[in-house]
Amino acid sequence: MSVYTTVTQAELESWLAQYTLGQLVELKGIAAGITNTNYFVTTTQGRYVLTLFETLKLEELPYYLNLMSHLARHGVACPAPVADRSDRFVSLLAGKPACLVSCLSGADVAAPNPAQCRAVGVMMADMHLAGDTYPARMANPRGPAWWSATAQVVYPHMDAADAAMLHEEVAFQSEHRFDALPTGVIHADLFRDNVLFDGDSVAGFIDFYYACNDVLAYDLAIALNDWCALPDGDIDGERARAMLAGYQSVRPLSDAEKAAWPVLLRAAGLRFWTSRLYDKYLPQAGELTFTKDPAQFQRVVALHRQRQDFWL
Amino acid sequence: MSVYTTVTQAELESWLAQYTLGQLVELKGIAAGITNTNYFVTTTQGRYVLTLFETLKLEELPYYLNLMSHLARHGVACPAPVADRSDRFVSLLAGKPACLVSCLSGADVAAPNPAQCRAVGVMMADMHLAGDTYPARMANPRGPAWWSATAQVVYPHMDAADAAMLHEEVAFQSEHRFDALPTGVIHADLFRDNVLFDGDSVAGFIDFYYACNDVLAYDLAIALNDWCALPDGDIDGERARAMLAGYQSVRPLSDAEKAAWPVLLRAAGLRFWTSRLYDKYLPQAGELTFTKDPAQFQRVVALHRQRQDFWL
Repeated sequence: MSVYTTVTQAELESWLAQYTLGQLVELKGIAAGITNTNYFVTTTQGRYVLTLFETLKLEELPYYLNLMSHLARHGVACPAPVADRSDRFVSLLAGKPACLVSCLSGADVAAPNPAQCRAVGVMMADMHLAGDTYPARMANPRGPAWWSATAQVVYPHMDAADAAMLHEEVAFQSEHRFDALPTGVIHADLFRDNVLFDGDSVAGFIDFYYACNDVLAYDLAIALNDWCALPDGDIDGERARAMLAGYQSVRPLSDAEKAAWPVLLRAAGLRFWTSRLYDKYLPQAGELTFTKDPAQFQRVVALHRQRQDFWL
Repeated sequence: MSVYTTVTQAELESWLAQYTLGQLVELKGIAAGITNTNYFVTTTQGRYVLTLFETLKLEELPYYLNLMSHLARHGVACPAPVADRSDRFVSLLAGKPACLVSCLSGADVAAPNPAQCRAVGVMMADMHLAGDTYPARMANPRGPAWWSATAQVVYPHMDAADAAMLHEEVAFQSEHRFDALPTGVIHADLFRDNVLFDGDSVAGFIDFYYACNDVLAYDLAIALNDWCALPDGDIDGERARAMLAGYQSVRPLSDAEKAAWPVLLRAAGLRFWTSRLYDKYLPQAGELTFTKDPAQFQRVVALHRQRQDFWL
């Protein structure tokens, strides 16, 4: 359940007077999402998603909201933030930073088919190209420095064999640098629950609050590890080839990116293996959500280590 | 028919490569609109309207396109221009300045009901408020200097009584100045064919190519003279009151605006009476469209001159 902060009809009406969206018709909590409070807000003008940010600070939000606005105006399907009469995307509501974004149609897909994987690849490449002209910068807060430090914290909780493997992976990644690969704005969390579909068409990418500037092909590796995964952690080759072909129909990978691809897939697996280990062994106070199993990403990494064919 | 410039599938595909909208699916001419060439363009990403500007110059377009983008990001329902990979809204296609905008649902309404007039009033007031933070400026090219000069051109073609009345109206307006009234961005041509509806809800305002900075209440007067007109040029009081109430539910008129309102209604009538006289007596070479009858606006003005109740 993701209504942590309650907003009353009267509070919202007074806050909405800052916008040019007509009169409030309905306010309704949304029981999805992990970190923030979300409501559907219907006005005489349309339907929007109201988000109250529970952890992000007012000054951290412009990178994400201006990015979504930038992508939307380039035709990338994502929620478009609505500006208020002072031309701001975010202001305080019930003591929390809050914004309104356009409401997308569609629903997420738990078991994607190859056509859907291809469509995600196409849209991700378009997003990467559209991000070219986005002026703001944000380093990836979940990069190698973060996973190295986090591994140190979780080693004592792990059994010896798993800890040894994690140590090997951190060491392996530290021997590889991707400074020569094309970088840009990446979503960095484009899992199946962050894409809405109308049939086989992408209706929208959502939840941009891990977006940052990093290696573009790494974004594709993160997505592939989730979209094309089988229950045993192996990758479905048909879906993987479809996603890669879709991406490359818009933005072909360079030789350097292809050479780095197997290492990027392991890096993408390591990043989520590490964060899930951390969430399992050091859960945050008041954490309400089901902790996801780190073993899935350990298997993804283990299988990438043995793999010969990377679907390129 | 409004395909003056033909665009081939191949030309469009090459031009679309500047955008992040996926692949071209369909290109289809639109048989509506007077001045420009319009096509529906469907890509794997969505449906857009392609406009090739037949008279406006590349350097004149940013005021209009940036305005539509500004209004759309404030939640005002209007076509949102799509930026290309160089972050431009407009570039040359088939030798003409061309842009893509989002495709709105809905259809225009020839015989609006009071609820629809009210909705137009609400949305216009929201548009006026959202325009507050729009930084660019454009003087109204169809203001008093224009109608005075244009009247001189059409007098010789008119019969004596009509010419005398036109002369009286130009003189009457020249005695009134609106410098003290609130100004801002106005649509300046919000007739029934420039609003799309889904039922009684406004799906979008379109055709912003007369937009400019002028007196806000004058925009409402222009709209009211069309939306609430009866075939004999008189105004339907029920629709007029609905439109005014809708507008004022968002942006109440000041005492100064109310005092000027009867004169603004005549000014709005004069502006279209004059332009229709010009189009009738001095049609442009190659003009394909049916010339609209100036007498409608002469009657509107004549009836405003006798009126006591202006629905405020």
